[in-house]
Amino acid sequence: MDIPTYDDVAAAHERIAPHIHRTPVMTSSCIDRLAGTALFFKCENLQKAGAFKVRGASNAVFGLDDARAGRGVATHSSGNHALSLSYAAGRRGIPCNVVMPHTAPEAKKSAVRGYGGIITECEPSTSSREATFAEVQAATGAEFVHPYNDARVIAGQATCARELVAQIDGLDAVIAPIGGGGMVSGTCLALSSLAPGTEIYAAEPEQADDACRSLRAGRIIADDAPETVADGLKVPLKELTWHFVANHVTDILTVSEREIVDAMKLVWKRMKLVIEPSSAVTVAAILKHRDTFAGRRVGVILTGGNVDLDALPWTQQ
Amino acid sequence: MDIPTYDDVAAAHERIAPHIHRTPVMTSSCIDRLAGTALFFKCENLQKAGAFKVRGASNAVFGLDDARAGRGVATHSSGNHALSLSYAAGRRGIPCNVVMPHTAPEAKKSAVRGYGGIITECEPSTSSREATFAEVQAATGAEFVHPYNDARVIAGQATCARELVAQIDGLDAVIAPIGGGGMVSGTCLALSSLAPGTEIYAAEPEQADDACRSLRAGRIIADDAPETVADGLKVPLKELTWHFVANHVTDILTVSEREIVDAMKLVWKRMKLVIEPSSAVTVAAILKHRDTFAGRRVGVILTGGNVDLDALPWTQQ
Repeated sequence: MDIPTYDDVAAAHERIAPHIHRTPVMTSSCIDRLAGTALFFKCENLQKAGAFKVRGASNAVFGLDDARAGRGVATHSSGNHALSLSYAAGRRGIPCNVVMPHTAPEAKKSAVRGYGGIITECEPSTSSREATFAEVQAATGAEFVHPYNDARVIAGQATCARELVAQIDGLDAVIAPIGGGGMVSGTCLALSSLAPGTEIYAAEPEQADDACRSLRAGRIIADDAPETVADGLKVPLKELTWHFVANHVTDILTVSEREIVDAMKLVWKRMKLVIEPSSAVTVAAILKHRDTFAGRRVGVILTGGNVDLDALPWTQQ
Repeated sequence: MDIPTYDDVAAAHERIAPHIHRTPVMTSSCIDRLAGTALFFKCENLQKAGAFKVRGASNAVFGLDDARAGRGVATHSSGNHALSLSYAAGRRGIPCNVVMPHTAPEAKKSAVRGYGGIITECEPSTSSREATFAEVQAATGAEFVHPYNDARVIAGQATCARELVAQIDGLDAVIAPIGGGGMVSGTCLALSSLAPGTEIYAAEPEQADDACRSLRAGRIIADDAPETVADGLKVPLKELTWHFVANHVTDILTVSEREIVDAMKLVWKRMKLVIEPSSAVTVAAILKHRDTFAGRRVGVILTGGNVDLDALPWTQQ
């Protein structure tokens, strides 16, 4: 297992800096009051391609030597990694093949195509996605960039927490949503070197709580095709992200679908920021688990803002 | 006629600084590409109370002597001035009475109440609004703070353009939406001292184009109760704002309802910023009048982000 180090993070940051935004950190006196905390929102919804995933994807793409880059890159993804990899490949001028569930939001599919990605659709289950991907990769010979179980990707995602602790002093805790665990692993990787006293929490939908159950059980538990409005958080942990989660995460907090949608709407209404449901899971967790965060300085990673504006969750019921 | 000066702007800025945000300026490579320009978005949607109007309202409220302040403040408004005045009055601990059309978005009414404002409803016409207001003011004796035809308010709104030119060098033009003309007048007031070479444009809905027709005619033309999705832009110019518009505005550009909604959705989708329809009118005008802005550095005032999330214009048809 190729475990990335802090040196890999520093190298990644230098490599990807020309291709990403150093995103701002925002605050909300209204949400602070509701939560009884001081929250510092790292706005990766304002990132290139609309999500933090462009950090890891860019690190993988721009770290390839020319011969490997020439055969292109390929991945399977529930959405944001797909469009981030397409974006990064487009900037390097190499092809990008993407396997996506046909149920992925139309906004994400058209964004992938907009960045020049080539989509092959599969069923919305991990097994179908992996089988379809094997066919695509065999046909193209492209470099596989896994959405999260990849040292290059984790080192790239770690640059987000590296920026956050440079922007905001004295954080008691940082919380990020957890699906496959790429962002959480990157956060662990960066903070264990830069701010080892800062606690790391993850937040997860009750309906896709496999990471929470994994942490309790002390081993990876993987569900096939859970259903949740937080479509970026349906995938399971893998060995590399499990390594970081098991060693560094204080707790994984779960929230209901209703709590996710309410928190998403709260951020839109009060902060005027478009965030996707996966990003709202952390805010919902902070509001629900008030005692865990009360009186503390908490970094909150708003992971992305790619939403189908024609199908908002509060207009769907 | 009490015409505010640049000294009033500097004094206003010092007075209101503890009560407002110095809002960030954002950019969008995607919208720049579409427009063929370099756009600098002054994000007043991220302002306290969700709109620039808190600048003028705070200047009026905190400029009152204690005796006058004790009787409270009152206004009529299509929305954002109402909640901004309620916010400012709340911070000073004085009452705020507001006359609002019963058709105003529910989000704005409940925000006014949330800030402690007391609402009296009227019909959605200028005549009904003014008659109802006269009754409320007679009953309370409160200080009238007009939403825009007020030197204190215009000096307050001018602090927005004052910040913008401090944040971004070398703007060739600035564009703001025009309803009653408070923001545009403040922009004229600030830029005529600070950046006299910067052109000032206004943008207006075709369906509420009274300011555009006024500029062409050389006199104020006022419509009663025009219909447009840009609900902040339905009110007519008054003598004080007409003074600034007639003397400093290069042109007023109009756009259709469809163009406004498309531009609003574009900003939400690409910039991940929640803006209200009135704020989208400028973006629509820049995309429509490409030749006017092509190749130039243009400041764009995103005036507010108070939207009823349960009634978005693209889900209403």
